[in-house]
Amino acid sequence: MDKALKFTITHTLKNTLARVGIIETPHGIINTPAFMVGGTKATVKTLTPEHVKELGGQTILANTYHLMLRPGADVIAAAGGIHKFMNWDGPTITDSGGFQAFSLGMAYKKGIDITSGSEKGDSSTAVHSSSQLAKISDDGVNFSSHIDGKKIFMTPESSMELQHQIGADIHVAFDELTSPLATREYIQKAMNRTHAWADRSLKRHKELNDEHIKKGENLQALFGVVQGAREEDLRKESSTYLGSRDFDGYGIGGVFGPTEISTVLGWVNNILPVDKPRHLLGMGSQPADLFLGVEYGIDTFDCVAPTRQARNGALFTYSGRLNIRNGAFKMDFSPVDEGCDCYTCKNYTRAYIHHLFRSSEILGLTLASIHNERFVVRTVDCIRNSIINNDFFNYKREFLEAYYGKDDAQKFLG
Amino acid sequence: MDKALKFTITHTLKNTLARVGIIETPHGIINTPAFMVGGTKATVKTLTPEHVKELGGQTILANTYHLMLRPGADVIAAAGGIHKFMNWDGPTITDSGGFQAFSLGMAYKKGIDITSGSEKGDSSTAVHSSSQLAKISDDGVNFSSHIDGKKIFMTPESSMELQHQIGADIHVAFDELTSPLATREYIQKAMNRTHAWADRSLKRHKELNDEHIKKGENLQALFGVVQGAREEDLRKESSTYLGSRDFDGYGIGGVFGPTEISTVLGWVNNILPVDKPRHLLGMGSQPADLFLGVEYGIDTFDCVAPTRQARNGALFTYSGRLNIRNGAFKMDFSPVDEGCDCYTCKNYTRAYIHHLFRSSEILGLTLASIHNERFVVRTVDCIRNSIINNDFFNYKREFLEAYYGKDDAQKFLG
Repeated sequence: MDKALKFTITHTLKNTLARVGIIETPHGIINTPAFMVGGTKATVKTLTPEHVKELGGQTILANTYHLMLRPGADVIAAAGGIHKFMNWDGPTITDSGGFQAFSLGMAYKKGIDITSGSEKGDSSTAVHSSSQLAKISDDGVNFSSHIDGKKIFMTPESSMELQHQIGADIHVAFDELTSPLATREYIQKAMNRTHAWADRSLKRHKELNDEHIKKGENLQALFGVVQGAREEDLRKESSTYLGSRDFDGYGIGGVFGPTEISTVLGWVNNILPVDKPRHLLGMGSQPADLFLGVEYGIDTFDCVAPTRQARNGALFTYSGRLNIRNGAFKMDFSPVDEGCDCYTCKNYTRAYIHHLFRSSEILGLTLASIHNERFVVRTVDCIRNSIINNDFFNYKREFLEAYYGKDDAQKFLG
Repeated sequence: MDKALKFTITHTLKNTLARVGIIETPHGIINTPAFMVGGTKATVKTLTPEHVKELGGQTILANTYHLMLRPGADVIAAAGGIHKFMNWDGPTITDSGGFQAFSLGMAYKKGIDITSGSEKGDSSTAVHSSSQLAKISDDGVNFSSHIDGKKIFMTPESSMELQHQIGADIHVAFDELTSPLATREYIQKAMNRTHAWADRSLKRHKELNDEHIKKGENLQALFGVVQGAREEDLRKESSTYLGSRDFDGYGIGGVFGPTEISTVLGWVNNILPVDKPRHLLGMGSQPADLFLGVEYGIDTFDCVAPTRQARNGALFTYSGRLNIRNGAFKMDFSPVDEGCDCYTCKNYTRAYIHHLFRSSEILGLTLASIHNERFVVRTVDCIRNSIINNDFFNYKREFLEAYYGKDDAQKFLG
């Protein structure tokens, strides 16, 4: 491929921003809308790559912050890149690591210290703490490893260098996500910094891609990240600013919950270039988000909730969630979900998975994770088909009423 | 099949007790000598049944004690038997649960109280404790569940009833294993009790098989268990006594370490009927045991060490064990073992598995377990082929010298 990424829209849905498309990467195609499977530390928790393929996972999303700390981006580079390292030959994407540098440096929850170069300290964020582990300046982020406390300074440039070492097909520009409690003043400041960082990310990324060309290696793609929180004018400004830059696609960050999905994505995706893919960064665990996201122009999603909840015994079904540890399942020889086509539902009963959880047997975590991932992947696949078949709104109503109940579903059906 | 089990010997090795054969069960054949994969709680720890098949596992051994406590033999019966419950369609065997009733009732380590009917208390075992949880009498064993302390009385008859509910292809008669510290007097007493229990197990087993016949269900096989510890005359007496009974095969219990393997198995397997399969119950984790066991007439083995050690990061290789957590493997992009053909070695590097262990990622346990199980299964497969090719002693020398080093291997090469 002479481009890092090619995106083709094959179907759209009248009166919505929804579209069906194909993203082509050096490691294969992604049919969109798509749910990307979370593989934070270069492994999808409890699953082999074969499990991920079998459950229909098209793409794995890993995390630059986690991987730079352990095993180290240099180790992955020496292994020949993340695909070889983790034995996954399909498309991959890495998040920039910015969010984790803040949040795992406790910044997101306990405090950020903003020192913006020559300006005086800006205390417009709502949270501050003397035990802060992350410091943000216009240059980058100073934080301490959550593993060993080692001081690390991360910049847009270093994030790109790390991501090129890791070698995923798609990279994400280094951005600053603001707290839901941030003031408008701080949101604007962070957005401007995100724009400056986006330009620096893009510059360094292009330099690194030039090196790949010289070595005859695959090009890597870069997504810019739209911020601006709940502020309409800032979201539009961010979309316009970044939309004019030469990114291969866009991430949309800082969108919290279903209400923000429809409003914020409406602002953003009416401005972002139509012909580039859009990824909703870090969605929540509500299936409604998938429907609203697609309706408002999202092509790809990621979320670690399916495997995390699976490990807690919370299994998704088309009629809501169930807790497989519950004694009611001891003698229940039906599958987790009658309507599910996953490996777990085809081969095992609720009683068996209940037994595994009660016995602390790891296979229980694996079977539960396969089921939950399949549930979400399949839901997005069905959304894709419903657009192709011009049946999106029927499918949305049917799914959400079954999952949330008729009354609770109304708030998503508008 | 009109019999529960059919055993055919296809090859023997001159001047040894070794033989190659085929055990036919209602769920398929077992090529012997064979290593049976440990699936104590109706799951091979961290692996799917597909993993077990792919690594060459022919048979899974589950445990009656564990399964009767959780999920309960009634649950497995209601599921349609252990094969359906755990999604394994190959041969299965259940251990009687006697050993675990003693040992997990702390008897093996902390104390057994022997009250043998009308006889006065027999204090010939070396160990006693006021916190004992297991009491043995000629009737059976009284013990407390290690899960919830519930009092349970287990007898040869109840063990057979539980095993028939669980529904494995091969059952093991309820026996009493003595401590390595037991006196000759107590060993003899326990052996006599084991013989009486064997007859009671066989009687109840036949009654339960008659019920299977009436219902048109598969017959289940029963192995008697030879005891007698280190005492030559008792082992011979036990082999003669049980060998004259209508068992489908034999377990040989209480054999500790390589020295006992060659002596004790020499006594026993020269007496047991040639045409019935012999299982070494609970071997240790030394590969030397496999070679000596086969040489002295063993057809099948089981051991939980491969997966247990795997979960601790101890990986078997043809040049000894390695600890994958060791920092030396951080940048080691070779497979765990160059000579290995397992899924793990074909697809992953030491560096990746090291990363998974350091990151507490469950996939590491799975990959390590696949490797270790394959190592042992394959070693026994190679032993089988070496008998067929009349090359057993060369293979034994080559393997043991590589694994233990030339000097240490001598003690097994005799």
